[in-house]
Amino acid sequence: MPDDQLMHEEDEGTIILKRTTVYNPPRTFRSWLIGRPLSTADAPHQAIGKAIGLAVFAADALSSVAYAPQETLVILAAAGTQAFGYAVPISIAVTILLAIVTISYQQTIYAYPGGGGAYIVSRDNLGEIAAQTAGAALLVDYVLLAAVAISSGVAQIVSAFPTLYPYRVELAVVLLLVIMTINLRGVRESGITFAIPNYFFLVMIFLTVGVGFYRYLTGSLGVVVDPPPLEVGQALQPVTLFLILRAFSNGTTALTGVECISNGVPAFKEPRSRNAAFTLIWMSLILGTLFLGITFLLGQIGAVPSEEETVISQLARTVYGGRGILYLGTIVGTTIILFLATNTAFADFPRLSAIQAGDGFLPRQLTYRGSRLVYSRGIVTLGVIASLLVVVFRASVTALVPLWAIGVFLSFTLSQVGMARRWWKIGHLAPEQEIQERGSILRYHAGWGSRMVVNGFGAICTALVTIIFAVTKFRDGAWIVVFLIPGLVAGFFAIHRHYKNLAQLLSLKRDGIRSHINRHRVILPISGVHEGTIKALHYAHLLSNDVTAVYVSIDPNEADAIRQKWEVWGEGVRLIILDSPYRLLLEPLLEYIEEITAQRQPKEVITIVVPQFVPRRRWHNLLHAQTATWLRLSLLFRPGIIITDVPYLVE
Amino acid sequence: MPDDQLMHEEDEGTIILKRTTVYNPPRTFRSWLIGRPLSTADAPHQAIGKAIGLAVFAADALSSVAYAPQETLVILAAAGTQAFGYAVPISIAVTILLAIVTISYQQTIYAYPGGGGAYIVSRDNLGEIAAQTAGAALLVDYVLLAAVAISSGVAQIVSAFPTLYPYRVELAVVLLLVIMTINLRGVRESGITFAIPNYFFLVMIFLTVGVGFYRYLTGSLGVVVDPPPLEVGQALQPVTLFLILRAFSNGTTALTGVECISNGVPAFKEPRSRNAAFTLIWMSLILGTLFLGITFLLGQIGAVPSEEETVISQLARTVYGGRGILYLGTIVGTTIILFLATNTAFADFPRLSAIQAGDGFLPRQLTYRGSRLVYSRGIVTLGVIASLLVVVFRASVTALVPLWAIGVFLSFTLSQVGMARRWWKIGHLAPEQEIQERGSILRYHAGWGSRMVVNGFGAICTALVTIIFAVTKFRDGAWIVVFLIPGLVAGFFAIHRHYKNLAQLLSLKRDGIRSHINRHRVILPISGVHEGTIKALHYAHLLSNDVTAVYVSIDPNEADAIRQKWEVWGEGVRLIILDSPYRLLLEPLLEYIEEITAQRQPKEVITIVVPQFVPRRRWHNLLHAQTATWLRLSLLFRPGIIITDVPYLVE
Repeated sequence: MPDDQLMHEEDEGTIILKRTTVYNPPRTFRSWLIGRPLSTADAPHQAIGKAIGLAVFAADALSSVAYAPQETLVILAAAGTQAFGYAVPISIAVTILLAIVTISYQQTIYAYPGGGGAYIVSRDNLGEIAAQTAGAALLVDYVLLAAVAISSGVAQIVSAFPTLYPYRVELAVVLLLVIMTINLRGVRESGITFAIPNYFFLVMIFLTVGVGFYRYLTGSLGVVVDPPPLEVGQALQPVTLFLILRAFSNGTTALTGVECISNGVPAFKEPRSRNAAFTLIWMSLILGTLFLGITFLLGQIGAVPSEEETVISQLARTVYGGRGILYLGTIVGTTIILFLATNTAFADFPRLSAIQAGDGFLPRQLTYRGSRLVYSRGIVTLGVIASLLVVVFRASVTALVPLWAIGVFLSFTLSQVGMARRWWKIGHLAPEQEIQERGSILRYHAGWGSRMVVNGFGAICTALVTIIFAVTKFRDGAWIVVFLIPGLVAGFFAIHRHYKNLAQLLSLKRDGIRSHINRHRVILPISGVHEGTIKALHYAHLLSNDVTAVYVSIDPNEADAIRQKWEVWGEGVRLIILDSPYRLLLEPLLEYIEEITAQRQPKEVITIVVPQFVPRRRWHNLLHAQTATWLRLSLLFRPGIIITDVPYLVE
Repeated sequence: MPDDQLMHEEDEGTIILKRTTVYNPPRTFRSWLIGRPLSTADAPHQAIGKAIGLAVFAADALSSVAYAPQETLVILAAAGTQAFGYAVPISIAVTILLAIVTISYQQTIYAYPGGGGAYIVSRDNLGEIAAQTAGAALLVDYVLLAAVAISSGVAQIVSAFPTLYPYRVELAVVLLLVIMTINLRGVRESGITFAIPNYFFLVMIFLTVGVGFYRYLTGSLGVVVDPPPLEVGQALQPVTLFLILRAFSNGTTALTGVECISNGVPAFKEPRSRNAAFTLIWMSLILGTLFLGITFLLGQIGAVPSEEETVISQLARTVYGGRGILYLGTIVGTTIILFLATNTAFADFPRLSAIQAGDGFLPRQLTYRGSRLVYSRGIVTLGVIASLLVVVFRASVTALVPLWAIGVFLSFTLSQVGMARRWWKIGHLAPEQEIQERGSILRYHAGWGSRMVVNGFGAICTALVTIIFAVTKFRDGAWIVVFLIPGLVAGFFAIHRHYKNLAQLLSLKRDGIRSHINRHRVILPISGVHEGTIKALHYAHLLSNDVTAVYVSIDPNEADAIRQKWEVWGEGVRLIILDSPYRLLLEPLLEYIEEITAQRQPKEVITIVVPQFVPRRRWHNLLHAQTATWLRLSLLFRPGIIITDVPYLVE
């Protein structure tokens, strides 16, 4: 070990050396695919402004204009095309809800300058159960966001290129895996790589809506030429309150992604909270405008919701009078924003699961950052589950939506309730008092009452939507999520219990250092007397003077031969021959070892030294009975036994 | 350990104890399926007479009358039904060949009273390559015997119950697995369980042939009513020599199983060889009579070879004028004899593979007798491969036959050449000289010349048939076997080389006992400072005073915490902190260990003590990174390193 790499420290007689590993990452397929490993020191630290912030955090929210109007129409279609008239009032209701949620979340942004997602807000204000519920709802949500956004993106592509329709599932899975790989490489969320496609989408969609309104006002808009066929059930349903509520539930998917900015406050330039809040308001204004505008225009052109051609495609080709360059630009912009929304899921899922794992509610491995400094295990987990969903639900947005937004609104609710509770706590502080919580600092604030009302009202509205969603969509698939979330929460607590118990049991403070070992027995199972065994015997001798060799005899003649050989080569060590009338090898040995361990004293240790044959070539393993491996596997779970493999290699 | 179970021996100061394991076999699904384990002392020793011997060993040979005539006709069918006239001359040629092989094999029986299969005869007289070739040919053969006989048996069932036709593959596989299970239980080959069905078959088939001839002679036989359709190619082929030879090749499948008795001589009562030879002659007489008789009658009734109804079924229902009780008896008898032939494969394959494994040409595990005293691994191997064949070849006898008999005739040839060579050796002995070979004793015999001619003639005939078979059936599937057998032989020798090298390398005679160990370094990788680590530290201290703890640091803050804790709890042991900037855990550790081992002295041993967390529940494993397991797997194949797992269980 070269000394120049070492830093020498000596405290209280214990030598502690420190060295940095000089590691030359090998060039493998993996490093070609996801890039060369990054050192921990390479982690980026970069702050973003409002314009870029809008681009980075808005993709999720804004992309919902691609599917929310369509999914509203899908439900109304069950009552026939004349029911489409309800779409505009429904979208007005959704927009009002959006305004309420935006105002409510603005307060969260100021309260949590360090980032205030539903998980953190719930954890600090409502306790572990609420926090884990929010965590479960959000994780389920991110998975569904990835599946819905990629499916909707593929639906846009398929609208422009109908020949691809039969391959939409394959296309969606491949694109998911591509986005997964990009995320494994590590995406710098900040930067113009995000801003350009985002603003391209905004320009294209505003142009489409703008031209659409211009043509509507000039009376030249017309209706969709050759619309896709309307898929309805056998009989037209009447327009009931239940149907309207179902359509409203689908429309609320427009609100997904609004919470993004509250998570990402630390990424903004100072004044962070101000910049973030400003961005949130702009985003909501744009989203509301687009959602209302698109829904209105769809009604005017007589668009038909369909899996074969999205309503965005129908709108664009009606507005532009055909599939020209502007039509194509609109579709490309919409598709890209949807892929960016998918990407958001790949950023948020691993981050949240790492936070939960750090708190001990998910496997610790999720906190481990991979070679590219990203939470690679979380990314791969999301990619796999989302791909499965896409395959199971045949990349159909309509089929996926009922599973989705229930988690979104549950987390909205928990977050707003948490905020209301926080204002209550603040209102009951002394004027100069400060309390440091894990996610933020509590200071007295005179306006706590009105602010509590704002968040409380937000909570009540989103709770109502959650219930409406769960009830009206229950049979369409919401039941899966209704049962899944409590199941996940139970799982999180089971994991937490395990880590807590383990930490307690392994704690060194419990009863000081345990007594030292004063007897060491070594058992050496042998399959014959040869160089490998004798090498193991020498090693066994090194460990203790109390060595017992054990041989299991199936054939009496062989046992005689072993006895004679042992007398010559056994160096006086005791040999026990276990006769095995049923020709079993492992069981007599295990029985013998069990007998020995049963008599074990508290300060006694038993070591089994297993001579293990290690062949030169892999296939040679097939020519050996692998008793050593089986022995090891059988003994690994028995207390008080230590297993040592003494390999003998054939060079 | 209770002393009354021990026998105490002491020689030259080494204590050697012997004890018999008191083992209470547990009641499991396995023991319900294949029976309770048998003690080695339970192995049966029972000798059989001629009548039972015929039943035990003849099933394989006699069952061939069920398919050999049919497969002869299948080939001739390509030239139209008028070509069926060639069947009788061909069957006469086959019967002559049968006579030659019988006479030749009779000499083998007298020469090898201890059992003289082709493998043993070749090994003693022609050397290892010939022996392994015979072994390969026979193993391939047994697999195909199992597949062909079960397929033919199912074809008989399907003939009587045509509704089962679509399920013939499933039926064949299930029956194969049933026969496999019966063999795993252990079949006593001797005994009337075999004799009853065998003699039942003989009675029924002789009755059928007898009544057939009676009706033929009285002119009342008639032709098959409503025969199955004849499946021919697009155009009728001319009757060429090649076609005749192909039909002859298929007919020679009648000879399969003739060698059985030469293998089983030791099972006969004294005078063993005389009884065995007598049985062989009777078997051949019966076989020849039945083969000729059936072929002749098939021609008279205009039977048509078909996968849907076997010719035996057509013959029986024509002879008995319908599907009455006698028809059914014939079908049942034929089916059972075919199952017994399958059973023969399950007796012979494991026995031969155990002999070859004992000689070191197959994995040693095949010599191991399972809980029921049978070579269970060989039985399962055969069951699996034969099932695969049945599935791949859709349980079609016609498709399987070209792969089959080439191995039979190759082993006949090797066996007869070996016998001829043996007579040559005997002829060149001094009158009183005796040579003990592995399989038999050589003594001078005056009639060696004529006997050599008999075996030599047999060898030439069977060699010719082998070549005819390989050439005429090459494209039908024989090519598989033509390439497979040399491949197997090469594999056998590769296995043998491995065992030979290993024995040489492990031999203790090489250079006496190696020098003892004089330095013992212990490396203790830790993932934290807790009770598990400290327990491992105590153990490491027990092994050597030269202990180094190693910690891989990903997070500098954690490294500081570890350092502080180690100063308190580390008992003065040196700790090395490996900084891992790329967040890898295993690689820095392996690099460090490699560095240490590179400096290793010849008499120095390095032990890695790995604290291994063993969770209470299986699923808890998912919550831990399993670094210890990966470390072990990475180090197992490195020389000079010994790995010790110190488990810490959470009780």
